[in-house]
Amino acid sequence: MRILGIDPGSRITGYGIIEKSGNRLTHIDNGPLVTKSSAPFAERLKQIYDGLSEIIRIHSPEVVAVEQIFLSRNVNSALKLGHARGAALLAGVNANLPVFEYTALQVKSAVVGFGRADKQQVQQMVRALLNLPEIAQEDSADALAVAICHAHSGGLNQRLADLAKVR
Amino acid sequence: MRILGIDPGSRITGYGIIEKSGNRLTHIDNGPLVTKSSAPFAERLKQIYDGLSEIIRIHSPEVVAVEQIFLSRNVNSALKLGHARGAALLAGVNANLPVFEYTALQVKSAVVGFGRADKQQVQQMVRALLNLPEIAQEDSADALAVAICHAHSGGLNQRLADLAKVR
Repeated sequence: MRILGIDPGSRITGYGIIEKSGNRLTHIDNGPLVTKSSAPFAERLKQIYDGLSEIIRIHSPEVVAVEQIFLSRNVNSALKLGHARGAALLAGVNANLPVFEYTALQVKSAVVGFGRADKQQVQQMVRALLNLPEIAQEDSADALAVAICHAHSGGLNQRLADLAKVR
Repeated sequence: MRILGIDPGSRITGYGIIEKSGNRLTHIDNGPLVTKSSAPFAERLKQIYDGLSEIIRIHSPEVVAVEQIFLSRNVNSALKLGHARGAALLAGVNANLPVFEYTALQVKSAVVGFGRADKQQVQQMVRALLNLPEIAQEDSADALAVAICHAHSGGLNQRLADLAKVR
């Protein structure tokens, strides 16, 4: 199963693609999509949407995993982040992909083993789990982390979703 | 010039289409797009995006006007609204339409004549300005109001945008 993880942001959106076969995870690609700060806001949303749509076209993931947002930020940044996240979710659903969301706690627990891990610990564990030659850029590492989180819990979520459909 | 006004919301997104010829405004269409509250959030964003894309396909507006958000809400609702607004802006830019944003103050000033007008006053003035047979649904009236705002100030914004390009 090929998983696209996304860490949305209005300035930088990280993406990460991993392949899961059995219990083995393989790194396929990752990177930050950086929007032009000089562009109008609607245009930046299009850059996020188009960038992710292109990644989906190139790598053909079967599922998208996005981190749910923790709400300790201020209202203005929550609003901006909401726009970026909306663009990211749409790139997924418009490509007819199932979209799963995970809390930061779930992601950190899945990747590092405890929910209060810091950024550096996440980056280090992502590197170790995927045998990366070096540490990934911060947002890209977060995107790979949420993809890994889905790889570990995806089966369970899928079964729950299937159960919900049957009812 | 045909203008699509949008009042985005994660539950109800209002849209309004007006035609401006000279100083005359004609009402074309309006309505609320209601998302299924039972659907997953990403799916609801797709309903907003697809609904507005369909409206754009049917009515071929030349420009989109969206109300900027006033930030007195709490972080959680700002975040949700951001997602919905992101989907609305994307429907516009993905149809290659210029997207303009107006503050609530600008919209109310343009439609009612003063910035502290309440919802009912906006609905009444929208009805009067567009000769509607009855008062439009609240979100649809807000969408028509932002379209009217653009009709009144659109020329100015366009000239400013053109000036900015020349520089």
